[in-house]
Amino acid sequence: MPDYDLAIRGGTVATASDVFRADVGIRAGRIVAVADRVEGAAREIDASGLLVLPGGIDSHVHVSQPSGPGIVMADDFASATASAAAGGNTCIMPFALQQRGMSLRACVDDYVRLADGACHIDVAFHLIVSDPTPEVLGQELPALLKSGYSSFKVFMTYDDLVLNDRQLLDVFDVARREGALVMVHAEGYDAIRFMTERLEREGRTAPYYHAVSRPEIVEREATHRAISHAELVDVPIMIVHVSGKEAMEQIRWARSRGLKVHAETCPQYITLTADDLQAVDMDMSGAKYVCSPPPRDAASQAAIWEGLEQGVFDTFSSDHCPFRFDDPAGKLTPKGRSSFRWVPNGIPGVETRLPILFSEGVSTGRISLQRFVALTSTNHARIYGLYPRKGSIAVGFDADIALWDPNRRETIRQEILHHGADYTPWEGFAVTGWPVMTVARGEVVAENGRVVGQKGFGRALERTAPGAGGTVL
Amino acid sequence: MPDYDLAIRGGTVATASDVFRADVGIRAGRIVAVADRVEGAAREIDASGLLVLPGGIDSHVHVSQPSGPGIVMADDFASATASAAAGGNTCIMPFALQQRGMSLRACVDDYVRLADGACHIDVAFHLIVSDPTPEVLGQELPALLKSGYSSFKVFMTYDDLVLNDRQLLDVFDVARREGALVMVHAEGYDAIRFMTERLEREGRTAPYYHAVSRPEIVEREATHRAISHAELVDVPIMIVHVSGKEAMEQIRWARSRGLKVHAETCPQYITLTADDLQAVDMDMSGAKYVCSPPPRDAASQAAIWEGLEQGVFDTFSSDHCPFRFDDPAGKLTPKGRSSFRWVPNGIPGVETRLPILFSEGVSTGRISLQRFVALTSTNHARIYGLYPRKGSIAVGFDADIALWDPNRRETIRQEILHHGADYTPWEGFAVTGWPVMTVARGEVVAENGRVVGQKGFGRALERTAPGAGGTVL
Amino acid sequence: MPDYDLAIRGGTVATASDVFRADVGIRAGRIVAVADRVEGAAREIDASGLLVLPGGIDSHVHVSQPSGPGIVMADDFASATASAAAGGNTCIMPFALQQRGMSLRACVDDYVRLADGACHIDVAFHLIVSDPTPEVLGQELPALLKSGYSSFKVFMTYDDLVLNDRQLLDVFDVARREGALVMVHAEGYDAIRFMTERLEREGRTAPYYHAVSRPEIVEREATHRAISHAELVDVPIMIVHVSGKEAMEQIRWARSRGLKVHAETCPQYITLTADDLQAVDMDMSGAKYVCSPPPRDAASQAAIWEGLEQGVFDTFSSDHCPFRFDDPAGKLTPKGRSSFRWVPNGIPGVETRLPILFSEGVSTGRISLQRFVALTSTNHARIYGLYPRKGSIAVGFDADIALWDPNRRETIRQEILHHGADYTPWEGFAVTGWPVMTVARGEVVAENGRVVGQKGFGRALERTAPGAGGTVL
Amino acid sequence: MPDYDLAIRGGTVATASDVFRADVGIRAGRIVAVADRVEGAAREIDASGLLVLPGGIDSHVHVSQPSGPGIVMADDFASATASAAAGGNTCIMPFALQQRGMSLRACVDDYVRLADGACHIDVAFHLIVSDPTPEVLGQELPALLKSGYSSFKVFMTYDDLVLNDRQLLDVFDVARREGALVMVHAEGYDAIRFMTERLEREGRTAPYYHAVSRPEIVEREATHRAISHAELVDVPIMIVHVSGKEAMEQIRWARSRGLKVHAETCPQYITLTADDLQAVDMDMSGAKYVCSPPPRDAASQAAIWEGLEQGVFDTFSSDHCPFRFDDPAGKLTPKGRSSFRWVPNGIPGVETRLPILFSEGVSTGRISLQRFVALTSTNHARIYGLYPRKGSIAVGFDADIALWDPNRRETIRQEILHHGADYTPWEGFAVTGWPVMTVARGEVVAENGRVVGQKGFGRALERTAPGAGGTVL
Repeated sequence: MPDYDLAIRGGTVATASDVFRADVGIRAGRIVAVADRVEGAAREIDASGLLVLPGGIDSHVHVSQPSGPGIVMADDFASATASAAAGGNTCIMPFALQQRGMSLRACVDDYVRLADGACHIDVAFHLIVSDPTPEVLGQELPALLKSGYSSFKVFMTYDDLVLNDRQLLDVFDVARREGALVMVHAEGYDAIRFMTERLEREGRTAPYYHAVSRPEIVEREATHRAISHAELVDVPIMIVHVSGKEAMEQIRWARSRGLKVHAETCPQYITLTADDLQAVDMDMSGAKYVCSPPPRDAASQAAIWEGLEQGVFDTFSSDHCPFRFDDPAGKLTPKGRSSFRWVPNGIPGVETRLPILFSEGVSTGRISLQRFVALTSTNHARIYGLYPRKGSIAVGFDADIALWDPNRRETIRQEILHHGADYTPWEGFAVTGWPVMTVARGEVVAENGRVVGQKGFGRALERTAPGAGGTVL
Repeated sequence: MPDYDLAIRGGTVATASDVFRADVGIRAGRIVAVADRVEGAAREIDASGLLVLPGGIDSHVHVSQPSGPGIVMADDFASATASAAAGGNTCIMPFALQQRGMSLRACVDDYVRLADGACHIDVAFHLIVSDPTPEVLGQELPALLKSGYSSFKVFMTYDDLVLNDRQLLDVFDVARREGALVMVHAEGYDAIRFMTERLEREGRTAPYYHAVSRPEIVEREATHRAISHAELVDVPIMIVHVSGKEAMEQIRWARSRGLKVHAETCPQYITLTADDLQAVDMDMSGAKYVCSPPPRDAASQAAIWEGLEQGVFDTFSSDHCPFRFDDPAGKLTPKGRSSFRWVPNGIPGVETRLPILFSEGVSTGRISLQRFVALTSTNHARIYGLYPRKGSIAVGFDADIALWDPNRRETIRQEILHHGADYTPWEGFAVTGWPVMTVARGEVVAENGRVVGQKGFGRALERTAPGAGGTVL
Repeated sequence: MPDYDLAIRGGTVATASDVFRADVGIRAGRIVAVADRVEGAAREIDASGLLVLPGGIDSHVHVSQPSGPGIVMADDFASATASAAAGGNTCIMPFALQQRGMSLRACVDDYVRLADGACHIDVAFHLIVSDPTPEVLGQELPALLKSGYSSFKVFMTYDDLVLNDRQLLDVFDVARREGALVMVHAEGYDAIRFMTERLEREGRTAPYYHAVSRPEIVEREATHRAISHAELVDVPIMIVHVSGKEAMEQIRWARSRGLKVHAETCPQYITLTADDLQAVDMDMSGAKYVCSPPPRDAASQAAIWEGLEQGVFDTFSSDHCPFRFDDPAGKLTPKGRSSFRWVPNGIPGVETRLPILFSEGVSTGRISLQRFVALTSTNHARIYGLYPRKGSIAVGFDADIALWDPNRRETIRQEILHHGADYTPWEGFAVTGWPVMTVARGEVVAENGRVVGQKGFGRALERTAPGAGGTVL
Repeated sequence: MPDYDLAIRGGTVATASDVFRADVGIRAGRIVAVADRVEGAAREIDASGLLVLPGGIDSHVHVSQPSGPGIVMADDFASATASAAAGGNTCIMPFALQQRGMSLRACVDDYVRLADGACHIDVAFHLIVSDPTPEVLGQELPALLKSGYSSFKVFMTYDDLVLNDRQLLDVFDVARREGALVMVHAEGYDAIRFMTERLEREGRTAPYYHAVSRPEIVEREATHRAISHAELVDVPIMIVHVSGKEAMEQIRWARSRGLKVHAETCPQYITLTADDLQAVDMDMSGAKYVCSPPPRDAASQAAIWEGLEQGVFDTFSSDHCPFRFDDPAGKLTPKGRSSFRWVPNGIPGVETRLPILFSEGVSTGRISLQRFVALTSTNHARIYGLYPRKGSIAVGFDADIALWDPNRRETIRQEILHHGADYTPWEGFAVTGWPVMTVARGEVVAENGRVVGQKGFGRALERTAPGAGGTVL
């Protein structure tokens, strides 16, 4: 019997701290050896000239969520995980969304059922709490947090999801007691409504005005508010999808006061701007870029890069939230045509996240390869309780590996992607560096743009306490 | 022939990013395998229950430097490296100090000669530039920087070392051109003289007044000045031995403007305060704690901890600068008895640095084990061009390893230390966690408080460009 | 016929910019001459050794407001204006409070009716908007703002008054269109409820816990929120009764970004602390100090002084909101005995505001006499549209004058005050400097602790646009 | 005998706090009445439609100073005071400059002699300390500070004037002991030399490179340094001629820490930019704008305006330092043609300061008339110990008055000015608002662009302690 099921040989291994030449030996889905020579494997993969990276973990992905009457999210678990795998990821973290009036537990069960048998790679669910009833606060949420759903997200905006300040404080308090991590979508609901109604009164309804309706002030105010609530309750939080300099200033300020505030940003905030929403003559194609917070401007892009380089941001996620564009059940609903207010919020990105950051960050020299690994994999595992099972190339970890050709030039096009959307916001975007093979728990699940793994191979994971693996890098 | 010269088995390996159970296989002084089982080694060390850490790198150590008429530094290269090895270190970075009126190159040669044949572990020299003549700026310094001495230190105070602003700008400019890193001792010379003379006029001459003569304002001003010069020239700098909240505020401010400013702190700034200099009735035993900058107060200690946790600090060094206390060639020179101004500045600490940070940081839960590794080893290697040769436990790296018993309780006492000083500022300091074996390039150099390696085993290393190994963690 | 009805001779006149020796000549209620000698007046007052100051304007006074079932505010317009006059004031600015479900216009009419014929000195009403219905926003409020009620207050807390963020934005928007000034009580309602319920669950119900239930974080968050809303809408605001360093930091930050944010503080924040609420053994006498925001600590007192000296604060008001202590219709309602939550919020202070600031500020040398005048009179007139009718000693202004003995020592005691409350929070507080005569529109209304003017002499004033008189000093 | 020598009737009087309609009665050079009607004067001036302002005080004016070999400053006391009077000023504050190697006292005597009999309006000298010998520190400076020269200036740059940090600390210490105010020219000497030599090596010698050689960083660093020294010594300072956002940030930061730091700015920093130095094709005409610090950019102009509006700046001075342009003893010395380094630093501006600020500030609505008065007159008097003799229109003050036509449109041209320079940097600059008459101690000294007063009328004034008149407005 061979010592190893699989050996990846001749590549350059990178972790969040180190880059070195080594072979990797895998047995029973786990990494068991990292050595100058790993011989005697049942199968060998030649990684000469390639980087051997921990598979991407995307901790912010929306799959199969209800999105309003008549609107259908473009990805189910099969397509979302296939797309993720093709993009170099070995784990995604979707959300189990509580709908108002429903049991949180029941919602979780529904999502687990949807995922069951459908996934190409592992998934681990965050919760979304939209209706913190006494039952939810007192029973369901604590029980779920204890049983491996150790993080949940709350929204400070959106009609169907927004929590008021009292509800935020109550759920923060549950998180504190249970040692859970709260992810916060920080935009102020009332301010957005105020701006939206004003714009609509003025007849400014094109998709572009989505960006005008949610300026940086609105994100900053909500960020400050979330930070203050967390300080009052004494609980760490994660500010997700930070879009610009204003919210960043609040996060830096909070940390200089010693507060535990994590932060995430996304590809759209380093590559897109509000100008993209202007499209051609303010036509509906701007809807392709409608997401929240909206992309900002060049100054905020520069600020976000600075934050990625300096460690202001712990994670770089996609906030994948796909809708078809040319589809009345997608971006172009009849109501969406009447006002930006009704255009479904979100863009696809789970497959393009890693190439965009690698190309714009590592290939340009803005960030090191180690920081890339930390931002795209290790810190996600560390923060969300998947560590030390996932997030590194080290003995005992799941053999979740992306082989990466750092020199390969590609152009992002819809036709080469695997998501359920009918477009990509990065159509025509040229990158240097591309994932050429994805190995999940020792199995090749994607290779050269083809998804080769089995549907159902991916499992829904339980997690440990957030941050258990040590400080974020 | 066995596959490995040495195997360290059954321990828990930690790098700056990961902690995992693994055996480590060593051949020809290098790490060649990290695996679940490494068998067939010529020698095996049982590391059960122990941590297997990258050997400490102490990038701020003074050895055999001239320190004024009649004063002798307490350590030569033999005792300094022995002491370091006993304290879990596998590399120290001493300084080759240019004396005014002398050739920088000649000074370097002198130090290399002193080190040659004397070291128990590897050493890598920084330069100290005290006399930036046209010859030094135009010829010697560029040549040395190119030839593997890729960092140098400058002083903004001390009669024999201080550079004025023009000289600072000139040497910063050389560093920019050569891609070198400048380490800055940031305290304002003139302000210290002003305060010192005022205190002396008032008859306040006890060692305690050393601390009064160099308040935080003086360090902060010099820090701001160094940052501004670096911004003007556009060169990264390292602010060494940051002692308190004021200088830290400037460093945070600089980074929020996008400037590349590294920062270092030391054990004295998390464990000692100016009160220690008061000694018994302001007697001369306060001289044991005279170092610059002086220890501050509880608020600054708290700030420094916050900085260690949050990544404000890249490195944690000893600033080992040993003098004998009860010795007219040490702290108690006749002039030193007449005024704090003449007490030699510096305290021993190369052997106690790691236990202090481990105990106060890791054992208390303030920082993770990974952050400990980054602060004490990886970042030193990364920043100063010793990477990827040193600074991690990974295939291809030097087999520089400290075996650490995380549960062992010890009390720091002079009698168990190996330095040349006759006292330790941490006499009686209780710690949890202790280095039980030090392996350098595959050889056991210290074991259980005994230095067992050979004098002369340690080499003087050349280095590559600073930061070549990727961003600091 | 004499040239002047009244001459005040031999005193030292102070305005917000100047202090000089001069006589003041008054005719028909107005100042008509300020000269080295004013002779030939029908009546002369000898002001030798006295300061001749603009009468105090207290722009934050609650009178005859409904305060919950069974609770009666301790002052009506007669007692409030008598008390104010005795304390050196010539004008107060009470609030016309809209009760929910009622017309704003009707509420204003009610208050004007209550004031009519009752006042010893002039009054000018701010509005309080608690129910911004479309009718209020579209009709009533704009009409009232146009007709001389050019400022209104909104609350971010209190069950019966709190506006949500959407309502705040809507009323801010009306203010922007009408050029009105919004006064903001900045404390976060939900956070207070959260804290209050937690404290009650823990059985912590003594008056002292009022302070614990509204920590500085809660005030700071609301301050940031109000500032952000004002920035979004582009309208100036006034943050009233700033209590400590946290809110102050936000105000400074806002101004450094160029935002127009006014700020007010009060005597309680420079003289009282939360410790005062602890009373004797946490007994009910702590209720005497229950006001919102609560007094803080020594560090915040120091910060507030710094703000008074440096111009962070534009106005110093009393926030007079009087309840009797030993009275079931006052502080000691049955519900108030069961929990701090039900203790009426507010303390009396309209009569003691000026002596406290004069003594603690001017007599100690912390602030200049000119700054005292600006903080207690001129800026109130300037900001709230009473300028150039009131707020200075200059030709053409109302002859509103306080004669002040800067050397007189007094001890504040309930028995010498004229308010309707049965206690003063400053019982036993010794001051240097005391108002010995108050002249309103040329008439002596108070003299040596006796109110000598006529009830009904005071009028309800209309106002011009805020800030019309020039920048705040 | 008439009651008044002069009455100014029918105008609108403005002080730093108030604006009101009044007549002003003058007797024996002093204001004795401000009243609705002042009748019976020997002479009446009709001020209908005009503003009656305190005469401008320009606290930063260089006259008859030595400026290097072969260079002659363009104004002596006669022309400087004539020019100032024509521009609406009634007092200027020139400098008595100590030359190195000379007695400070002797230098003062020299300047007083030069001024004696030559001045059209009053003057009050600041000292400049360039050679703080023990004699100067111990005897001369304390004696002069006591005898009415209560402020002095120090330079952190310029070959002949620069003090090193030790000297700065020593003179700050004298100021602390004597209660004097130190004015600081904050630019870093060494950094400027470093930049200058680099530019010269690169052949960049046109006047434009003057601006490049002294970037905002250099001013900011020196500002921080001066603030730190002042904090160490515990003495208030005045940062003169602040040019941009970087130095302003330091001043705000210092104040938020409670430090007493005054600040001044000048017309050049709100109206000129570094682009003006580019002239036509980088020709020598750029020398017309060479002053230090150099004008910056639009962002810094906006910041300076914000500082003027918000009270960051206490005074607005000209920094009048005139040289003829087309003159080998002026800007175009042979050496000045070879490099910007030798172009005399300074521009004329004493006559245009008030119209520029009035037009750009008051006429545009950026600042109030009261703030204009504070910035151009009252605060100068207050800060530098001329108060309460000068700086306001109030009983007992010198009758120093500028009559101002707020609606008159003028275009600044060299031909209408009275200074000794042969150009103005504001040639062609259109303004709204113009001084039509200047009255000094009751005498008309300038009228409608003509200087009508007597040479020798102006006196050299002694001063009282800085800040004696109360806080700055």
